[in-house]
Amino acid sequence: MSESSLIEAFLRPFDRDRASVRVGPGSDCAAVSPSRGQQLVATTDAVIESVHFDRRWFTPEDVGHKALAVNLSDLAAAGARPRWFLCALGVPREPRAVFYAARMARGMAALARAHDCAIIGGNVAAATEWSVTITALGEARRPLTRAGGQPGDALVLAGRLGDAAAAFRYLSARAAQVTRAAQVGRPVPRAALLAQLRPDPLVEAGLIAASLASAAIDLSDGLLRDLGHLCAQSDCGAVVECTTLPIGTLAAREPDALELALAGGEDYALLFAVRPRRLQALLRSIHGAVQIGRLTPPGEGLSLTERGAPRRLPARRGFDHLG
Amino acid sequence: MSESSLIEAFLRPFDRDRASVRVGPGSDCAAVSPSRGQQLVATTDAVIESVHFDRRWFTPEDVGHKALAVNLSDLAAAGARPRWFLCALGVPREPRAVFYAARMARGMAALARAHDCAIIGGNVAAATEWSVTITALGEARRPLTRAGGQPGDALVLAGRLGDAAAAFRYLSARAAQVTRAAQVGRPVPRAALLAQLRPDPLVEAGLIAASLASAAIDLSDGLLRDLGHLCAQSDCGAVVECTTLPIGTLAAREPDALELALAGGEDYALLFAVRPRRLQALLRSIHGAVQIGRLTPPGEGLSLTERGAPRRLPARRGFDHLG
Repeated sequence: MSESSLIEAFLRPFDRDRASVRVGPGSDCAAVSPSRGQQLVATTDAVIESVHFDRRWFTPEDVGHKALAVNLSDLAAAGARPRWFLCALGVPREPRAVFYAARMARGMAALARAHDCAIIGGNVAAATEWSVTITALGEARRPLTRAGGQPGDALVLAGRLGDAAAAFRYLSARAAQVTRAAQVGRPVPRAALLAQLRPDPLVEAGLIAASLASAAIDLSDGLLRDLGHLCAQSDCGAVVECTTLPIGTLAAREPDALELALAGGEDYALLFAVRPRRLQALLRSIHGAVQIGRLTPPGEGLSLTERGAPRRLPARRGFDHLG
Repeated sequence: MSESSLIEAFLRPFDRDRASVRVGPGSDCAAVSPSRGQQLVATTDAVIESVHFDRRWFTPEDVGHKALAVNLSDLAAAGARPRWFLCALGVPREPRAVFYAARMARGMAALARAHDCAIIGGNVAAATEWSVTITALGEARRPLTRAGGQPGDALVLAGRLGDAAAAFRYLSARAAQVTRAAQVGRPVPRAALLAQLRPDPLVEAGLIAASLASAAIDLSDGLLRDLGHLCAQSDCGAVVECTTLPIGTLAAREPDALELALAGGEDYALLFAVRPRRLQALLRSIHGAVQIGRLTPPGEGLSLTERGAPRRLPARRGFDHLG
């Protein structure tokens, strides 16, 4: 295995020759032409073997897709249009690593094409485990942030909750079953597991919300935890009505469906705060978006209701990446 | 250890409140205002424990410095002015990881300050080994690339060769000595080892060369290998005169000084191709720059001379990151 053969195999599935890309992969740096009047929006996120993905149930194409998807979801939360990305690979010394990387690239390239986002650079380094660290660049006239919400804003959610965590639970149990003959119940088709394997970044929803919402965050660490981040940055409390949460169909089968929806993580849904006068416009223009609560004064903290009555917060609030 | 305490400790030593940074660390994305009329120049590079650094002889501050330095060196090769960067950390679950990360940040922040380059975002993920993956963003009106050289161009080198590889050899031998009482000769002061531990990215040289050179590359994988990249992209051959190479003082003490200079790697020197009519201007304006050879027609390949007479190429040409 040589570095150049791996890079060549990795780059093959990607579209090239975008007008905005002045210098693409191959030199020390890429060069692109930003659009006038737009801010440049940047994010970086990594997926690491055995932390974020397990090769027993992630195909290499899934890994490539997910690594880019989690970054595009961050751009979506900023209301930014994806433009370009760089991809740093950690590659273990193993047979067929070039083949694995090439399949990873196929999954990544399909998603990149769907969002018209061009690969412009990258890096390859030997490592003890596979890792994919992507930096995605987008553009927005007025990027959304976690700050900007205020008491009285409605909380609106686009996407579904809990399915990624439910799928993870199913996949881990199925993998364990192979070695210890445990029961995992009736088989689940792969299509129902895609919330975990191939999350769909809600880029269009983010672009629509850019001109309507006051604050936004993408839900990677669980609704309660990410809502907590939005509240902290917007200096607000929040109340969420449990019965309004759009729980996914796989999660809904689980006995702890609500906990999965509140704290399961990896939903890559988008949570917006929006002024009451813009609420209807936002709900009308994003398919499937629902109001799940509202921001309150900061002293009131984070609370749940069930049909309007107070409900206890679950002990587990979400995912800490080093916890 | 929690994610938020690590992030807080990491960000503390960095300067904040740059005018160009509209949204810094803390939201899903950063947002910056690119300058009008400039191209955005982007690069990503990683340093990984036990591949790129050994904690027996790299302080955490060294690691932080080097992770940013290798990226700034890429921007320098493009003739770009550093503006912003994002930093993705892989963090092992170990005692004092927050303290280690905070020290790493101090080394990184000092270099960032020296080059007026603002941290705008990042990511933290659990991993089995420490890794730092940086994406650096700069600006240039006309970025230099590896392409653009032509036969007859002079090859000009800024920086010194071989010291990083000689320092690596010394540091490995000294570390081994602790366990097997080997002799490594007389001690070398830390200052002489900085080419390996704290490479100095030649940003100013790159900015000067931007308006004079026809092609450029930074030397990370060894002169011969990186010159090979420049030749491939510029569709040229090259001849290098060995006696003109600026061999560093530590490398010069080694019996194989020339091999270290040609193929040792990690020099983070800059190699430029320049049209003959601009050669004197380039040599005058970059302190310590020397002509080391010239580009030739592509059929002539890569060759060495010693006082004008042909000299055999060494067997080892440089560093392959997966080799």
